[in-house]
Amino acid sequence: MSRQVDLVADLGEGFGDWAMGDDAALLEIVTSANIACGFHAGDPRIMDRTVAECVRRGVRVGAHPSFPDLVGFGRRAMDLTAHEVRTDVVYQLGALMGVAAYHGTRVAHIAPHGRLGNLVAVREDYADAVVDAVSHVDRSLRVLAQDGCLASSARDNGLTVGIVGIADRAYEDDGTLVPRSQPGAVIHDAGEIAARTVRMVTEGVIDSRHGTPILVSVDTVLLHGDTPAAVQLAQRIRAELESAGVTIAAPEARQ
Amino acid sequence: MSRQVDLVADLGEGFGDWAMGDDAALLEIVTSANIACGFHAGDPRIMDRTVAECVRRGVRVGAHPSFPDLVGFGRRAMDLTAHEVRTDVVYQLGALMGVAAYHGTRVAHIAPHGRLGNLVAVREDYADAVVDAVSHVDRSLRVLAQDGCLASSARDNGLTVGIVGIADRAYEDDGTLVPRSQPGAVIHDAGEIAARTVRMVTEGVIDSRHGTPILVSVDTVLLHGDTPAAVQLAQRIRAELESAGVTIAAPEARQ
Amino acid sequence: MSRQVDLVADLGEGFGDWAMGDDAALLEIVTSANIACGFHAGDPRIMDRTVAECVRRGVRVGAHPSFPDLVGFGRRAMDLTAHEVRTDVVYQLGALMGVAAYHGTRVAHIAPHGRLGNLVAVREDYADAVVDAVSHVDRSLRVLAQDGCLASSARDNGLTVGIVGIADRAYEDDGTLVPRSQPGAVIHDAGEIAARTVRMVTEGVIDSRHGTPILVSVDTVLLHGDTPAAVQLAQRIRAELESAGVTIAAPEARQ
Amino acid sequence: MSRQVDLVADLGEGFGDWAMGDDAALLEIVTSANIACGFHAGDPRIMDRTVAECVRRGVRVGAHPSFPDLVGFGRRAMDLTAHEVRTDVVYQLGALMGVAAYHGTRVAHIAPHGRLGNLVAVREDYADAVVDAVSHVDRSLRVLAQDGCLASSARDNGLTVGIVGIADRAYEDDGTLVPRSQPGAVIHDAGEIAARTVRMVTEGVIDSRHGTPILVSVDTVLLHGDTPAAVQLAQRIRAELESAGVTIAAPEARQ
Repeated sequence: MSRQVDLVADLGEGFGDWAMGDDAALLEIVTSANIACGFHAGDPRIMDRTVAECVRRGVRVGAHPSFPDLVGFGRRAMDLTAHEVRTDVVYQLGALMGVAAYHGTRVAHIAPHGRLGNLVAVREDYADAVVDAVSHVDRSLRVLAQDGCLASSARDNGLTVGIVGIADRAYEDDGTLVPRSQPGAVIHDAGEIAARTVRMVTEGVIDSRHGTPILVSVDTVLLHGDTPAAVQLAQRIRAELESAGVTIAAPEARQ
Repeated sequence: MSRQVDLVADLGEGFGDWAMGDDAALLEIVTSANIACGFHAGDPRIMDRTVAECVRRGVRVGAHPSFPDLVGFGRRAMDLTAHEVRTDVVYQLGALMGVAAYHGTRVAHIAPHGRLGNLVAVREDYADAVVDAVSHVDRSLRVLAQDGCLASSARDNGLTVGIVGIADRAYEDDGTLVPRSQPGAVIHDAGEIAARTVRMVTEGVIDSRHGTPILVSVDTVLLHGDTPAAVQLAQRIRAELESAGVTIAAPEARQ
Repeated sequence: MSRQVDLVADLGEGFGDWAMGDDAALLEIVTSANIACGFHAGDPRIMDRTVAECVRRGVRVGAHPSFPDLVGFGRRAMDLTAHEVRTDVVYQLGALMGVAAYHGTRVAHIAPHGRLGNLVAVREDYADAVVDAVSHVDRSLRVLAQDGCLASSARDNGLTVGIVGIADRAYEDDGTLVPRSQPGAVIHDAGEIAARTVRMVTEGVIDSRHGTPILVSVDTVLLHGDTPAAVQLAQRIRAELESAGVTIAAPEARQ
Repeated sequence: MSRQVDLVADLGEGFGDWAMGDDAALLEIVTSANIACGFHAGDPRIMDRTVAECVRRGVRVGAHPSFPDLVGFGRRAMDLTAHEVRTDVVYQLGALMGVAAYHGTRVAHIAPHGRLGNLVAVREDYADAVVDAVSHVDRSLRVLAQDGCLASSARDNGLTVGIVGIADRAYEDDGTLVPRSQPGAVIHDAGEIAARTVRMVTEGVIDSRHGTPILVSVDTVLLHGDTPAAVQLAQRIRAELESAGVTIAAPEARQ
């Protein structure tokens, strides 16, 4: 069982004068950051100061590429070709690599955002497009994904994969997530979420909606920071993981 | 005197379905390309295929960062802080580095576009911002500039500088360009432009508007391709340089 | 049978310094113009000069709203809610109304562009969104559409509808268009296209792909101008319609 | 002396998922709203719901056009031509007119935003560009301005002008504002600001930084809502104006 886990959150999701989420609070909790790259959020100044803060605190930086939809925050499906996805991802990844290089660090992982993040789990062509981008730009990048097409394609191509656990979502018996459209899909009780996270990380098990224990292999947990309650929950999850003896750290970078 | 010269042109300046200039023709003439990075022109697909073509033909790729002004093609001054210039340049440079990495090459130079390109010659803070970006992101990049603040700041910081000759512009006795607002500032005769270019490169001399020979140190010549006549002129310049025994090549990349 | 027809083309589809199509040539042929409103093409200067030219030549101006996708030219489906479609259409329509008012004219019609134009024919919620926008902003606008949801919804809500004939597309026996993915969907022979157009307008009949005559009720014909050949074809269609005694004119504006 | 005053605030300055300011609180205080039109802030949904709320509460809607600079919030000078300013203003004004028409109301005024707002006070060409736009699009619009080029040009062209009082800024003896770069330019004491506002409105007098009473003719007061303290101050100003017997209302619309 994993006794080490990487805590990750989406950061740098403001734009210009507009802020979103409590980045300062999250930066004290997480070990890795998914950083918006300008297509759904983030601008060169926000990316710059977010990476600078990550470096200062030892948080790993990762690219959080999106569909090109600022006004829709990358949450709306767009009928892009796989070639459009691949080139958009290369552009965004490169932009963050530039910012990272400026601050003397490197991009350590990639995690597609929003609707693109949903679609790479189920569309093979999109998954392959992201893997193609990573394979050619920097094979040392860890690919963060839920189980699905992106994780499979990345593994098949010899990339390092980090499976992201979703502690506040209910699971079916087959290990897939209960769709958000169904009742009970999202778990709201903070204590339950924290307990599920600890069990997921320390035992590799999570209970399905029917109470069946399911084996999961999670080395990364996604935390949220868009509300004060979310930040509190993130702090609690970290504290309970530490109490359970889990090491909170990003994996060693591959050379 | 220089017996080798790098021929450079602005490429990839379309956007989406819109085209600009005859990239195919220019790619057969130049040895280096200033590639638009998305802020005044260029999108991830155009950048991708422009870099791919450069690789195929052995043309060096360079970043052509701009003020963020797509509708104004980067030609309008914007009152950015030096910090905004620095972060915008890092972002655009990084984006092109991503595309270059995808295609197995590296960005070899940087040349600010349009109004930003004009202003880095006369504003020390902007020049320093670009040099700061290059110094931290990739010190092996050659900085293309006319004589002015950017060239000075780059040299002072130990960066490699390529001085760009402007063969179709008249010079004052002190070596500065005659402002475009004055009559005779732009030379239109193709034969005269080609002859001035050859002399500039082979002898290091150009005649001022008053006929005074001025010493110039040019290792790069900027060609245009926005009209069929411009492409013809570019071909003629290359041919006359070759006839004069000049080697047409980009300088060796610094390690 | 209709003895009058409105000839319409998409105009003003450049952006900034980028041009598209031969607007000058089309403006001598058409009686109405679908004018890009900034979301897929068009910017305030292009809209301004396109409307000014329409006024000078007596061409009616219409709004050509799109999904917000400049880099994709509005050709990619985006998963917008009907509310997003309605508000995006109101914004774009209003912007053109401002430009029209500046030049002393009024917007006469609306014709959704690209993928949005395809989707309003088959998605009732999108069709209703456009009709909702028109109904509240200016009920005197003519709604240009092919047969489908938008035409139906507009008629049901008492709006004036202009049915757009597509002379270079093959029809099924039931009057629907043969999908572009099938062979023979697009007709390329100029003579055939011109003849079909004349018959469509003067007799209200078009032959299906199987040779069956189909009744159509067309009062508007869409012309293209993106290539020199397209402009020539547009000229030929206009000439043959005139030879057949058809009046080329936009319908009288409703008060 | 004026016994009626229009209270105005900048509203709808979010974008997509990003919020700015406390619009709900301000809508209970003001009688007119400057509504962002998409170039520095505001998107079609935000414009739609802001106008809808204004209609519901009887608040007049006005256009708040800006330089096209979303990431810079319209605060950075851009070297636009007067033609570019005019066309950008027409576009934005028209877009808001569309939204207003949808909700059964009309745009009542215009007030340029941010840096454009500063520049129309001192650049005659920009002032004339805005006046040209208003004169041709809707002459019934009231032009909100501080004393300066825009107010003069609007008056010279027969437009209705509303002079906006700035209660939290110090004045020179000649009635101009003390530049922000100088100490004491901005007044921070809430009581003093409220008292100055009341005196400005009821007596037409404000004390200069040297204590000299200056005559001012103010019929509109600009309130801020970007911080909780700003909202509280806005509430206090309204309350003290009412206590002093001032009618809080927008002027009657001109027919």
